[in-house]
Amino acid sequence: MNSRDEALALDRADPLGALRDQFALASSTIYLDGNSLGVPPATAAQRAQTVIAAEWTQGLIRSWNSAGWFALPRHLGNKLAPLIGAAENEVVVTDTISINLFKLLSAGLRLQNERDPKRRVIVSERSNFPTDLYIAQGLIEQLDRGYELRLVDDPAELPDAIGDDTALAMITHVNYRTGYMHDMAALTQLIHRKGALALWDLAHSAGAVPVDLNGVDADYAVGCTYKYLNGGPGSPAFVWVPQRHQNAFTQPLSGWWGHRAPFEMNPQYRPDDGVGRFLCGTQPMVSMALVECGLDVFLQTDMQAIRRKSLALTDLFIELVETRCSEFPLQLVTPRTHAQRGSHASFEHPHGYEVMQALIARGVIGDYREPRVLRFGFTPLYTRYVDVWDAVETLRDVLASEAWRAPEFATRGAVT
Amino acid sequence: MNSRDEALALDRADPLGALRDQFALASSTIYLDGNSLGVPPATAAQRAQTVIAAEWTQGLIRSWNSAGWFALPRHLGNKLAPLIGAAENEVVVTDTISINLFKLLSAGLRLQNERDPKRRVIVSERSNFPTDLYIAQGLIEQLDRGYELRLVDDPAELPDAIGDDTALAMITHVNYRTGYMHDMAALTQLIHRKGALALWDLAHSAGAVPVDLNGVDADYAVGCTYKYLNGGPGSPAFVWVPQRHQNAFTQPLSGWWGHRAPFEMNPQYRPDDGVGRFLCGTQPMVSMALVECGLDVFLQTDMQAIRRKSLALTDLFIELVETRCSEFPLQLVTPRTHAQRGSHASFEHPHGYEVMQALIARGVIGDYREPRVLRFGFTPLYTRYVDVWDAVETLRDVLASEAWRAPEFATRGAVT
Repeated sequence: MNSRDEALALDRADPLGALRDQFALASSTIYLDGNSLGVPPATAAQRAQTVIAAEWTQGLIRSWNSAGWFALPRHLGNKLAPLIGAAENEVVVTDTISINLFKLLSAGLRLQNERDPKRRVIVSERSNFPTDLYIAQGLIEQLDRGYELRLVDDPAELPDAIGDDTALAMITHVNYRTGYMHDMAALTQLIHRKGALALWDLAHSAGAVPVDLNGVDADYAVGCTYKYLNGGPGSPAFVWVPQRHQNAFTQPLSGWWGHRAPFEMNPQYRPDDGVGRFLCGTQPMVSMALVECGLDVFLQTDMQAIRRKSLALTDLFIELVETRCSEFPLQLVTPRTHAQRGSHASFEHPHGYEVMQALIARGVIGDYREPRVLRFGFTPLYTRYVDVWDAVETLRDVLASEAWRAPEFATRGAVT
Repeated sequence: MNSRDEALALDRADPLGALRDQFALASSTIYLDGNSLGVPPATAAQRAQTVIAAEWTQGLIRSWNSAGWFALPRHLGNKLAPLIGAAENEVVVTDTISINLFKLLSAGLRLQNERDPKRRVIVSERSNFPTDLYIAQGLIEQLDRGYELRLVDDPAELPDAIGDDTALAMITHVNYRTGYMHDMAALTQLIHRKGALALWDLAHSAGAVPVDLNGVDADYAVGCTYKYLNGGPGSPAFVWVPQRHQNAFTQPLSGWWGHRAPFEMNPQYRPDDGVGRFLCGTQPMVSMALVECGLDVFLQTDMQAIRRKSLALTDLFIELVETRCSEFPLQLVTPRTHAQRGSHASFEHPHGYEVMQALIARGVIGDYREPRVLRFGFTPLYTRYVDVWDAVETLRDVLASEAWRAPEFATRGAVT
């Protein structure tokens, strides 16, 4: 592509172009961080008012029934299910990815312990998002029964790392830093062939790339609603357990929302039949209600259309950076192969942190990830082709002018 | 009291009377269920708009720093601390009571295992709110190391039940059903004398009765922000760990928010120094932000003033029910002794469920708890003396007319 006009032409022809109007996003903002925090659906502010001014203020305690609050984790789970190839009553929206991973890892290790107690290894990648590793470490330390977390440095090492000592492979579908995407079908098959369980983290997949959990016969999954699903800052995560695993499984976070009859107030825990047993405590309803605003936008399109545009956006971004910023030390870390690419593109730069701060100061909002990585997320529901063009032009300016060397871009905040 | 006018006179003289205006509560609603879900602070709707339309929409990802989102669990914890006798940097608002109990029980059992491995018993009450018992059961089953949950049927049995085999006593300060309140200082002393740790659940205490965690030298506490603290439906819970216990402790829900440097993305978990290590995953910011609206009201009064009015309200309610409904089979289950009473009053009635539904239909909102208990919560920030009078008159009407026998009041919903 050689001109901004070509990008504008692509936007005019974009079948998803009209969906941007359903988000509260200023035209002047080039937001390439929807893989970290999605933008607000246009309906979110009104939905919050309804929850507060009608459901809470008028309905008060009655809204647990009358406004469907108590049922919301299951209701939203069913609405989310088609986006990830899950069936009805297999998904609940609840808690956080970290907490949900603890539930699934606990249940999975327990299941494997019954089947084949010598399987004591959880396999994952060192480059996984850290909380996944931290939770596995916490569980292993707590159990104190010789479990081990085995980390590989490269996806190519996974086939050898997963063996007859492996209870479970905990794999993030799309890497948060590089954008590398695993072949979920092939890897699940490999994991099963080795006798292990396949746990998928869909944090950077749900709403970004097509996922077919039941189609690939996966065992468990967790994911995030505040990234590509646009649920709002810190909105509750989701957890998927296929029907075949639900009733055989137990997990230690056995709070009252997972009880089969929570209002009987029985002092003995008896888990719900089905996915309800993956719930634990009372959920934050205002944040949770907003998840539905994001999911409703997805009803107007499908994951295939989203994927087509996602690849077109990341292709264009990579092409433009490599042609228009070729004199600068930018190194693509995201795979060029479509089948291995999620919906973001990352480049290393020796001064990645400072460059990203300078970009943000000019209204191009991506983010920085250690070490040296400039990360740009492309969210087909609201990212325009012209945003890609403008972002690369701004990047070129920042690099050519060395604007990133200004002292104010060197200070690191708590969250970057 | 013999007339409604006397109640109105008490309201006019009430030093807390003006605070009701800071809540969005219709004058016609007699809401006696603030011990289950508090009413909205008047500022809550606007605060939600600010979070959504300014912080999320304008600030986008930057608001994790610029709007203080990332710091909010600690900020709110520090604001809540004075209400429960906690110090700075001892409280975080996060997750749910169930999840937080799991953290504390795990940490406590581990600490005791290092000190005295023969201590394998958690003591609690069978009448405790069930989720507390369920979480202890889940942890004990997961650990599978001979731990035991020992339940007593009466508080008087606690001294004998807590012995040299006891690791920890998990006690709810105010019973959710009966309103019975323990003597926290005396019981903590007893627990310590027996060599056990004292874990307090403040679900029905925080914002309702004076609590002095450091004063009584307690070991851990959890509590709720959506009841007397008016944080909103399902708003995140809080967890308290005193300074002396913080750095010796580990808990298995070791998510990235508890890491000492979460954005270094190190694959090895290293807990934060201090209370930060009791955090786990990303928190729901819209729900969490509203917690501050509720806490801000408490800055205008103090727990002693709240306690005085709370006792006056429950005294009046008990007196009026017993004098004006004396011909009906209502049996007080809440202690008459002030020192043993929280901020709600409960009566058993053979048809408690139906009677409560009939009351709710007439605009007197209390709630029902198995078995047979009519539960009425009194929240001094917004409950008026005239509400007490009117509630009892409505109760008398419902009982005298037998309106509760109407078929529509017999059907049980999912949440009551």
